[in-house]
Amino acid sequence: MLIDLNSDMGESFGAWKMGEDDEMLSIVTSANIACGFHAGDPDVMADTLSAAKAKGVGAGAHPSFLDIQGFGRRQILGETPDQIQRQIIYQIGALKALAESQGYSLQHVKTHGAMGNMAAEDPELARAVAQAIYRVDPELIMVVMPGMETEKAAEKMGLKMVREIYADRAYTEAGTLVSRKLAGAVIHDPQQAATRVMRMLESQAIITLEGVKLPTRIDSICVHGDTPGAVEMARQLRSLLEANGMTLAPMAKVIA
Amino acid sequence: MLIDLNSDMGESFGAWKMGEDDEMLSIVTSANIACGFHAGDPDVMADTLSAAKAKGVGAGAHPSFLDIQGFGRRQILGETPDQIQRQIIYQIGALKALAESQGYSLQHVKTHGAMGNMAAEDPELARAVAQAIYRVDPELIMVVMPGMETEKAAEKMGLKMVREIYADRAYTEAGTLVSRKLAGAVIHDPQQAATRVMRMLESQAIITLEGVKLPTRIDSICVHGDTPGAVEMARQLRSLLEANGMTLAPMAKVIA
Amino acid sequence: MLIDLNSDMGESFGAWKMGEDDEMLSIVTSANIACGFHAGDPDVMADTLSAAKAKGVGAGAHPSFLDIQGFGRRQILGETPDQIQRQIIYQIGALKALAESQGYSLQHVKTHGAMGNMAAEDPELARAVAQAIYRVDPELIMVVMPGMETEKAAEKMGLKMVREIYADRAYTEAGTLVSRKLAGAVIHDPQQAATRVMRMLESQAIITLEGVKLPTRIDSICVHGDTPGAVEMARQLRSLLEANGMTLAPMAKVIA
Amino acid sequence: MLIDLNSDMGESFGAWKMGEDDEMLSIVTSANIACGFHAGDPDVMADTLSAAKAKGVGAGAHPSFLDIQGFGRRQILGETPDQIQRQIIYQIGALKALAESQGYSLQHVKTHGAMGNMAAEDPELARAVAQAIYRVDPELIMVVMPGMETEKAAEKMGLKMVREIYADRAYTEAGTLVSRKLAGAVIHDPQQAATRVMRMLESQAIITLEGVKLPTRIDSICVHGDTPGAVEMARQLRSLLEANGMTLAPMAKVIA
Repeated sequence: MLIDLNSDMGESFGAWKMGEDDEMLSIVTSANIACGFHAGDPDVMADTLSAAKAKGVGAGAHPSFLDIQGFGRRQILGETPDQIQRQIIYQIGALKALAESQGYSLQHVKTHGAMGNMAAEDPELARAVAQAIYRVDPELIMVVMPGMETEKAAEKMGLKMVREIYADRAYTEAGTLVSRKLAGAVIHDPQQAATRVMRMLESQAIITLEGVKLPTRIDSICVHGDTPGAVEMARQLRSLLEANGMTLAPMAKVIA
Repeated sequence: MLIDLNSDMGESFGAWKMGEDDEMLSIVTSANIACGFHAGDPDVMADTLSAAKAKGVGAGAHPSFLDIQGFGRRQILGETPDQIQRQIIYQIGALKALAESQGYSLQHVKTHGAMGNMAAEDPELARAVAQAIYRVDPELIMVVMPGMETEKAAEKMGLKMVREIYADRAYTEAGTLVSRKLAGAVIHDPQQAATRVMRMLESQAIITLEGVKLPTRIDSICVHGDTPGAVEMARQLRSLLEANGMTLAPMAKVIA
Repeated sequence: MLIDLNSDMGESFGAWKMGEDDEMLSIVTSANIACGFHAGDPDVMADTLSAAKAKGVGAGAHPSFLDIQGFGRRQILGETPDQIQRQIIYQIGALKALAESQGYSLQHVKTHGAMGNMAAEDPELARAVAQAIYRVDPELIMVVMPGMETEKAAEKMGLKMVREIYADRAYTEAGTLVSRKLAGAVIHDPQQAATRVMRMLESQAIITLEGVKLPTRIDSICVHGDTPGAVEMARQLRSLLEANGMTLAPMAKVIA
Repeated sequence: MLIDLNSDMGESFGAWKMGEDDEMLSIVTSANIACGFHAGDPDVMADTLSAAKAKGVGAGAHPSFLDIQGFGRRQILGETPDQIQRQIIYQIGALKALAESQGYSLQHVKTHGAMGNMAAEDPELARAVAQAIYRVDPELIMVVMPGMETEKAAEKMGLKMVREIYADRAYTEAGTLVSRKLAGAVIHDPQQAATRVMRMLESQAIITLEGVKLPTRIDSICVHGDTPGAVEMARQLRSLLEANGMTLAPMAKVIA
C-alpha cells in the first residue's frame, strides 16, 4: 500500500534560515514550497525545487496571504474570493516557472496558514482555491483535509485530490484540529504519533481525541518541518510505516 | 509595412492609480505589464491582462528589481546574475499564469527600469535575462535596444527579438539614450516626435541627436504612458504612422 | 467658537500620488499624516510635515496596520493588543522624529482604517491605542469618535481628547457610521453636508439618520481628502462654518 | 581603562530568529538594534530594548536601507543624501519611541551594512547620517570607523563620537577592512582576535595586516553576533580584556 509524507519546505527568507529542509527532503515524499508571500524568495524557491528534484520528492506550491511579517498566519479580512484566487494563481505561476526552468514540474498545491484554515471553513473561498488551481493547470493535485469545504470544492471542480491527516495533531468530532490551546492537542512523542497514524491508515478513518472514527480515504500524512524534534518525528513515522508494509511515494503516485 | 507600439502598463498598485491604461490600450499594440516587483499586484495584473486581451493588445512581462518604494528605478547592487535570473523567472511565471488562467498568453518580455538599464550595459546580466526568458518559454519575444548587450544576448540564446526605439528620447552616437539632464534629451512635441520616428523607420536606422544614422532593424516604438500628455503623444504618433502607410500590429506579428 | 477641520494627508507612496494635499492644507486645520504602514514613506512624511508647518496646520500621526497593498483597510487578525501597541509606538515615533527634525511637533494621533474601526469597538485594543500614545508623549491628543471604546480608553488614560464627527457620513442610533452599502450613508452634496454639520455643532450632538440627537461635545470635523469633490466639500464646509461665526483652529487650540 | 564592546542585535524578523541575543547581551556593553528596515519588527525591537535595559547594555539604533530581503547588505543607488537622511530619522525615531515608552533611552546610532559602507566613503552621505542623528537628538553618539568620512562628518556636526575597531577583521593600510575574499581577512580564532585587540588598545592604533600602526583613539570593539562561534569569540575577548585590566562599559561611559 502506498502512502505519501508531506511537509512544508522552503520557508527560509533572505538571510533567515528556517527548518531542516535537507534532512526532511530525505524523509518525506512531497514538499509544500513557500511562494514568497509568507516565506521563500526566488533563491530559496529555486534551491528547494532543485533539492526536491534531486531526491525525487514531489514539489507543490504552498500559497498564502501576502504577509511576510506574520508568516501567513494572520487572517486578513476584506478581500473577495476573486482577489484571493488571483493571489494564488500568481504564486503557483511563479513557482511553476521556477520548477519548469530547471526541468521539473509541479505536482500539487496546498494552501498555507490562515488562508488554508479559512478556505477549509468557507465554501466560496474553497471554490476560489480550487478554481485557481484548475485555471493554472487542471492536472495539479489539490491537497485537502477530509470533510472540509476544500474537499467539496476540489470534487466539484473535478480536480485530482489528496486527503491528508496530521501526524501530530488531535482531531475533534467535526474532523477539525483540536485547538493548540487545549490539552492533548499536539502529540509530541514520535512513537505515539506513528502508532496513531498507523491505526488511522488501517481503519481508513480519522480517529478523534475521543476515539470516534470518521471514515475517509487517506492519501498523505503531514509532518511539520520547523519545530524542535520535527526531523526525529518524521524519521520514526517513516520507519514505522515501512515496518508495517507501507511504501512511501509522492502523492501523485499514491492516487495514480 | 507593420510596426508595433509598446507601452508600460499595469503600474497601479493597491489603492494607487497610475497611467491612463484604458486609453493607451486603444492606441498601442503591445503592453509591458508590471509583475508586482516595482508596481502591479495580482488584481492590477489580472485586470490589465483582461483589458489587453479584449483589445487584442499583445501582453508582455515587465520584470524589475524588487523595489516597490523606488518603482524599480534604483540600481540594487550585490546580486549575482543567477539571482536576478530567478527573480525574472518568478515574475514572468506569475504573469503567465494569470494570463493563461483567462485564456490569454504572453507575447514578450521587456525588463523594467534599473534592471533594464543595467542589462543593456552588462553582458552577464543580459545573458541572465535572455536565459530567464528562454527557460520559461523559448517562444517568448525579448524586447531589446538595438546595439546593446541585451540584443547580443537574445541573439546568442536564439530568442525571437524585437528591436525598439523610443519615440520621445534623443539618442547618443553610442546608440544610448541622452541623459534626461541634458538639453534636448526629451522630445515633448508629439508632432516632432512622430516625424522623427517616421524618419527612423524610413531609413531603418536610429538617428542620433547630431543626425548620425545608426542602421538597425526597427520593430517597435516605445511610448510612455505615465507622463502628462502621454496619451496625446501616442495618439498623434499612431495617426502619423498610419497616414504614412504603416500598419500597427502587436510585435509578434511584426516579426512573424 | 472654535472648531477644527481634520483630514488624512500624506497618503502618497513612492512614485504614486494620492490626494490634493496642497489644496487641503489651505483649508483644514489639522492633518492626519500616514506613517509608512499603509501609505507614506519618509519623503512623503517629511514633505507633508513641512507643508503643514508652513501653513500652521496641526500635525498628527495616522498609524495603521502594516498593509501597504491593502491601504490599511483590511482587518488583520491574530495580533495581541500589546503587539499593536508596539506598532503604533513605532509609527508615532518615526513621524515625531521627522517633525522635530524640522522644528515642528506632533499635535495628535488618530488611528487609520481597519485599526481605527477595530479599536472603536474593542476595549482592549482601544486601551492599547491610548497607552501607545501616552507612552510616547502624554501631551499628545487622541482623536476619538464620541461614544466609542476609544473615547472611554482615552478618558481612562487621562489623555487630552478630541471628539470628531464626519462631515459626509450618516450616523446610526448607536453613534456609529451607517454602512456605505446602505442608501443615504454618504452625503455627496457639500451644501447639505455643511448645513448638517452646523446643526450638529449648534445642538452639540450627533444627529442620526433618523434625526435623533446623541449629545456630545464636538471638537473637530473630519473631511476626506482623497475622493472626487473632496476639496470642494472641504472648502464649502469651511465657508459655511465661518459664515456662521465659527473660527477654524487646530484641535490643540480648540480644546485648550 | 574603560572600553565598550558593541554588537548588532535584534536581527530576528517575524517568525525568523537570528543571533544569540540573550547570550550576547550578557557579554557586550552596547547593542546596535535593527529598526525594521533590514531586520527587526516592532516586537523584536521592543523585546531587544527590554533585554538591553535589564542588563544595563547601552541601546543604539542600527538604521539601514529599506531592504528586508537583502538584509540591508545591497547597495541601493539613486537616492539623494536628503532622502537617506529622512530614512535614518524615521528609523531612529521609531526605536527611540519604543525605548522611551519603556523608560529607557537611546545611547547611540550606527549605520548598518551597505548604508554604513557607503557613508564611510562618501562625504555627502556621511554628512547626511551625522545630520540625521543631530536633528533627532544632538546628544546621541555616532559610532564611526577611524579615518573614514563618517568620523569627519561627526566631528564637523559636533556630535559625540565613538571610534570602533572590528575584533575579527584585518585592516588595510588605508584603515579599511580587508575584503572578505582575501586570505587573512577574517580572524576566526578567539584567542588570536583577543590578543590583537589588546595590542591595538595598548598602542592606541589600528594595526594593519602588514603590521603598520594607524594611530587613533579606540572607544569600542565590534563583535559579530550572528556567525558560528560568535558568542565564544565575544566571551573570550571580554575575558582577556578584563584580565588585562580593562573595564567594560557602555560607550557613553567610555567617552564621558
